[in-house]
Amino acid sequence: MRDAYLIGAGQSDFGAFPDESYRSLFRTAFEEMVESVPDGISRDDIDEAYIGMVSIGGRQIGLPGPAVTEHVGLDGIPCVRLENACAASGYSIRQAIQAVRSGMADVALAGGTEVMNDLGRDRARYWLGVSGEMEWERMAGTTFSGVFAQMASAHMNEYGTTREQLSHVAVKSHEHGAKNPHAHLGYECSLEDAESAPTIAAPLGLYHCCPMSDGAASVLIASEDVVDDYTDDPIRVAGAGASSGGIGLFERDSYTSIPATKQAAESAYEEAGMAPEDLDFAEVHDCFSIAEVIAYEDLGFCEPGEGGAFAESGETRLGGDLPVNTSGGLKSKGHPIGATGASQMVEVFEQLSGHAGDRQVEDATVGLAHNIGGSGGAATVHILEKEGSA
Amino acid sequence: MRDAYLIGAGQSDFGAFPDESYRSLFRTAFEEMVESVPDGISRDDIDEAYIGMVSIGGRQIGLPGPAVTEHVGLDGIPCVRLENACAASGYSIRQAIQAVRSGMADVALAGGTEVMNDLGRDRARYWLGVSGEMEWERMAGTTFSGVFAQMASAHMNEYGTTREQLSHVAVKSHEHGAKNPHAHLGYECSLEDAESAPTIAAPLGLYHCCPMSDGAASVLIASEDVVDDYTDDPIRVAGAGASSGGIGLFERDSYTSIPATKQAAESAYEEAGMAPEDLDFAEVHDCFSIAEVIAYEDLGFCEPGEGGAFAESGETRLGGDLPVNTSGGLKSKGHPIGATGASQMVEVFEQLSGHAGDRQVEDATVGLAHNIGGSGGAATVHILEKEGSA
Repeated sequence: MRDAYLIGAGQSDFGAFPDESYRSLFRTAFEEMVESVPDGISRDDIDEAYIGMVSIGGRQIGLPGPAVTEHVGLDGIPCVRLENACAASGYSIRQAIQAVRSGMADVALAGGTEVMNDLGRDRARYWLGVSGEMEWERMAGTTFSGVFAQMASAHMNEYGTTREQLSHVAVKSHEHGAKNPHAHLGYECSLEDAESAPTIAAPLGLYHCCPMSDGAASVLIASEDVVDDYTDDPIRVAGAGASSGGIGLFERDSYTSIPATKQAAESAYEEAGMAPEDLDFAEVHDCFSIAEVIAYEDLGFCEPGEGGAFAESGETRLGGDLPVNTSGGLKSKGHPIGATGASQMVEVFEQLSGHAGDRQVEDATVGLAHNIGGSGGAATVHILEKEGSA
Repeated sequence: MRDAYLIGAGQSDFGAFPDESYRSLFRTAFEEMVESVPDGISRDDIDEAYIGMVSIGGRQIGLPGPAVTEHVGLDGIPCVRLENACAASGYSIRQAIQAVRSGMADVALAGGTEVMNDLGRDRARYWLGVSGEMEWERMAGTTFSGVFAQMASAHMNEYGTTREQLSHVAVKSHEHGAKNPHAHLGYECSLEDAESAPTIAAPLGLYHCCPMSDGAASVLIASEDVVDDYTDDPIRVAGAGASSGGIGLFERDSYTSIPATKQAAESAYEEAGMAPEDLDFAEVHDCFSIAEVIAYEDLGFCEPGEGGAFAESGETRLGGDLPVNTSGGLKSKGHPIGATGASQMVEVFEQLSGHAGDRQVEDATVGLAHNIGGSGGAATVHILEKEGSA
């Protein structure tokens, strides 16, 4: 198996952009990505492209993959749209890695783009509903906030997790996001703000839920045979894991853990020959604060049931032992669903390149990115390592 | 690069099935596929899954990939939906091949499923419209029939192709499809039937257009390391090509050729070390009869402009020099868009296994499958070869 490397990454601002389209946002991300490749890259070097998109507000419902790649001048290459709800571009990254490892591509693009704010509120709610389990959740009236609220209630009941601990996650995310120029909600919030905000789906309040964002992100994966053409500081894909199953909460043995995350993490750690202790930072899927708490546990950052306390301990803040979501995460940076997985990889790239500015994790050499779809029906986990640093 | 092999394939009937869902149809295809593996296979052997689906009539709009795989007992594996309009599952096959060639999977499933008949006619028209170019074709009122009618007019104008030649394609497809128990329109039609049918979009009549079908198909790709566990008569993926671009007809230099097909074919022939003369049969994308004529030319079966005469010559009929669409093609077998690419591979598998019954091509050892999305904005070309037969 050929080794694969992350050689560039870029993203648009995340936010509500009524004057932008899924194509114009992708172009911005693509151009920032091209600029980020240390020794430069030509469009002609890109052999394949994988575009994550749920097409919530995209006008081009069929063929949006080729629609965005031809818009940036990438005609004439294999290109396909991938969709796994909010894990769409986590899977784009997996496919770009496979393209490179297979020998079929030397450089593959993995991107994602989503416009969510050009819809009436009812239609957005409809789309967001159908990404959960349709027949037994959505048609019974359950929303995504409702599904994650059930997980939060179960976690509180089973482990004594508190609402204030969830608020600590939000405060931390906003603290990080305030340092990210691309963030949708790039401001700090206090514990009191988070605690006193209106309830969305009890026990979750406004600050325990991510926003609806427009945005795009794009990264480049290159093979070991060509990586030296693009950088002197290669960042290797040490582990790539993915899984799926249990798209409805009711199908799972437990409401306090996501099997697809655990399976994807196990594969990624095994392939990397690493354990959670080897990580310097992580981007995890925090569509709701409870999702981040559960991710801590499922990814092995702490024991089951201890995620709330782990959040409260401050270890996941910048300066802590394992900073999580230094980008601001879905909560503060934003969540344009098809672009989220690729955007996490943008943060991993910036951290491992030492270009994360005020968000820089000192001596960052190993980072993890974790992306889930729906309420956890699909998941990817990728571990990246700065070469020669192990 | 590890070699990849086609070890099994199955499909549901194609047709209008108001009592079936995208999941139940996929289960039927999956079960036929499992049965088709010569030495048998267990669900546990399947490492990854790629599901083509445009989700036209699917209730589960987000995460339909995991929704169908968990329905057949494939929980806990990487699974993602791919969409490239009508080339969705041609790309599923490409990704399954990459998964195997990369070393990340030993056995990968590539499938597709689509329910198109649970929609009102207006909504189906909307969806079928948006798979072309949205802003300048669909919003100007152009339908798919209209786009292919423009191609047909251009071909007639440029090369003297006749409407009767298009009818010969339809007659041949129905002749083949009448021998396929899975076909949606499994009956013969005469040249007079085709010539006298109502006009859909001039110059195309009813018999120059494929039907809207429900259906599913599924195939298995295995690595060289494990292929012997499943069969004594391996069918090797000799060439895998794909491309994209020019999703709008107006973006192309010519209306009488599809660049993505030509690029995908060039890659596939080059990888296989083969030329069109090496093929014993082919499944090509005939959403409209003119598409089959253009495919003959773009795939190198005849010179540009000679596709009409090639159809009329009878060489592409069973018993001819290069039988095309022995399955009946999209025209007679049917076109459940997300399932079509995988279904083409079902025919390739049955032909190369010698199990095509009345449709069997004598001594078939090399076959090609060609799938396009929209009006040609994406394409895949795969060449399969019965091992030890070169």
